[in-house]
Amino acid sequence: MLARLNETERAIALADLPEWTTVAEPDGIARSFTFPDFIAAFGFMTRVALLAEKADHHPEWSNVYNRVEITLTTHDAGGLSQRDIDLAKGIEALLR
Amino acid sequence: MLARLNETERAIALADLPEWTTVAEPDGIARSFTFPDFIAAFGFMTRVALLAEKADHHPEWSNVYNRVEITLTTHDAGGLSQRDIDLAKGIEALLR
Repeated sequence: MLARLNETERAIALADLPEWTTVAEPDGIARSFTFPDFIAAFGFMTRVALLAEKADHHPEWSNVYNRVEITLTTHDAGGLSQRDIDLAKGIEALLR
Repeated sequence: MLARLNETERAIALADLPEWTTVAEPDGIARSFTFPDFIAAFGFMTRVALLAEKADHHPEWSNVYNRVEITLTTHDAGGLSQRDIDLAKGIEALLR
């Protein structure tokens, strides 16, 4: 569960997450989100916070008004792990 | 209200905010906060979000687990304004 994904695993996992891009530092995945206003952006962040706390896996993220930037990485795995993929899919599900 | 503070105004205002440091890009003030865990950090962020929305003045901020970094600047003023000082004081009041 906490192993860093190899290239094949990563390719398969990311095929289901077309909106996410890989980042190098830290090794992980990232996505930007834009909302109509701060209320919508922070409402989204609150939902993500609850998901993250429940999963005991937390994002590196920032917000400026209606924009939210999320990076997911697993420090204990030294990079992208299945936990990041699962959280990214959970975040995508919030938006549907 | 939306004017960028001059050096004298800035010095007076920041004397009341010893935990905040000035930053150059964007011209503003910043502070880091550390909490016991993510629940405490995001709880704090939620309180700041309500203050910010009420003031219609929003932070540039980021969070990684138990740490929150906040930068305050006023784009319409081209830098640090009284609105930033007021929001910083409101944030400090949350912590007391």
